[in-house]
Amino acid sequence: MKSLWLEERTLSLRDIERPTPASGEALVRVRLAGICATDLELVKGYYPYTGVPGHEFVGEIVEAPEAPERIGQRVVGEINAVCGNCGTCHRGHPRHCERRTVLGIVNRNGAFAEFLTLPLANLLHVPDPVPDESAVFTEPLAAALEIRAQVPIGPKDRVLVVGAGRLGQLIARSLVLSGARIEAVARHERQRELLSAAGVHVLGEGDLPSRAMDVVIEATGSPKGFALAQTAVRPRGVIVLKSTYAGRLEIDAAPIVVDEITIVGSRCGEFAPALRMLHEHAIDPRDLIDAERPLAQGLGAFEQADWPGALKILLRP
Amino acid sequence: MKSLWLEERTLSLRDIERPTPASGEALVRVRLAGICATDLELVKGYYPYTGVPGHEFVGEIVEAPEAPERIGQRVVGEINAVCGNCGTCHRGHPRHCERRTVLGIVNRNGAFAEFLTLPLANLLHVPDPVPDESAVFTEPLAAALEIRAQVPIGPKDRVLVVGAGRLGQLIARSLVLSGARIEAVARHERQRELLSAAGVHVLGEGDLPSRAMDVVIEATGSPKGFALAQTAVRPRGVIVLKSTYAGRLEIDAAPIVVDEITIVGSRCGEFAPALRMLHEHAIDPRDLIDAERPLAQGLGAFEQADWPGALKILLRP
Repeated sequence: MKSLWLEERTLSLRDIERPTPASGEALVRVRLAGICATDLELVKGYYPYTGVPGHEFVGEIVEAPEAPERIGQRVVGEINAVCGNCGTCHRGHPRHCERRTVLGIVNRNGAFAEFLTLPLANLLHVPDPVPDESAVFTEPLAAALEIRAQVPIGPKDRVLVVGAGRLGQLIARSLVLSGARIEAVARHERQRELLSAAGVHVLGEGDLPSRAMDVVIEATGSPKGFALAQTAVRPRGVIVLKSTYAGRLEIDAAPIVVDEITIVGSRCGEFAPALRMLHEHAIDPRDLIDAERPLAQGLGAFEQADWPGALKILLRP
Repeated sequence: MKSLWLEERTLSLRDIERPTPASGEALVRVRLAGICATDLELVKGYYPYTGVPGHEFVGEIVEAPEAPERIGQRVVGEINAVCGNCGTCHRGHPRHCERRTVLGIVNRNGAFAEFLTLPLANLLHVPDPVPDESAVFTEPLAAALEIRAQVPIGPKDRVLVVGAGRLGQLIARSLVLSGARIEAVARHERQRELLSAAGVHVLGEGDLPSRAMDVVIEATGSPKGFALAQTAVRPRGVIVLKSTYAGRLEIDAAPIVVDEITIVGSRCGEFAPALRMLHEHAIDPRDLIDAERPLAQGLGAFEQADWPGALKILLRP
């Protein structure tokens, strides 16, 4: 089957063997897949990964030896394949399973290919009215929604989102639904327009208030973004780190202690609520799509996804 | 009056004018004062402060124009003198008042002197059965107790304290009362003995389990301590920064996000519960006292407090 292959920081188109579902797994034909910042960072060497990248997808079950009744189902898939038996699984945090594989990230070939495999338990049926172009956002939307499971945010709060790219946009939209006042820093005109249309108050970097925000979501993954977050957050406020940091982060720790700031690392979230919100049109992410390109143009699509201000680039195998 | 004076990173004994209480304030004769890590860091230039350092004390009200009935009262004093009117005060975080002065730390002469002034509202009456040698620990004990107001800790938790100095000992003792399993890393034999006697499980640095702790309290203020904390904490766990960081802290941010770690800055806490616990003998800190020296020996006392493994050095004006 056709795939995008990552090895030693180099992406290439490669024909590889179609995978065979292991016990408890299904074979899924990928209908549509999305490129996210983690994919770009993987290519830059953020994490040593060899294989097919890609973890945002919508597909169709084509083989399921243990659940033949699910063949033909359109699905999205929780990307962490877990053991269910380790301490972390038992503590109720299966997404942190000590023995997990992660689709397109850790020891499991991903979605930039014609087919992938995942445990049946990971695959959620996508209701018919949800188009592929929305369903493919289930994974990043789940990640965005997780912020509200980790940090209480409501109408009394003033919240800043730093970074208005593909994930920042989803975060801002999901936070608007909390009733909080949501502000965002955005560099690019199209990002600003999308934010405004979603009810987000757009700030220039120069207009950033100091020590004012109850919660700041840092979605740039850059030391500069973190510095902005630290300036903007109020004493006893919360900074959420919601991005992939490729390098080390040098922080001024004294103000974290003196101002009693809380920093919350946030990675991914539950799929079911995200899918429900897409189904109910609480969030429609389709205007974040910049382009849909065939898998054969995957190298160019990766370049395009890395342009300044780029939003979502989709690949169709 | 006699005082210890800090100016351009140099401590000296100096005769200064006895302060006059401003409106709403009292003049307090210092009976006993404690040296803490923040004082040592101030001398090293952690924060540009000129004046009398010292913020842990027990004293006696000798002038109180607006509350003459309090003259003669033995008191401890909340160190943040606040406006009550700014946004942070209104939000219920007066210790973060935007216009605060802080005893011996920010724009207010401190406790290493014969007298100090503080607002009457800051001064808590010390019950007679509480000896000076316990009462002088009210401030650091309040800081230790604040951890439990910020992070839920209970019998289901495994908690590590990194750093077994003066503050780390108080933290470990106060956490033992939570019913959690408390472990601590300690370098010095006397620190280890005190911890064991308090019901804390003592670990060598080499015995530190990886990714195992629900909560880690980092009480060293050093990058090495933070690195230990990051190794020991479990996914979705909490690291509490409970010390004064003099320099910048370089952290590996990727695992904070991937493991969804929460970092909580923690500075100081409420005095009333700390004083109550001393009164009820829930915590008796007196075995943490290394020496009590006259104020005239303040320079030597500061040196002694900075020895490796030193615990509490008290100054009596």
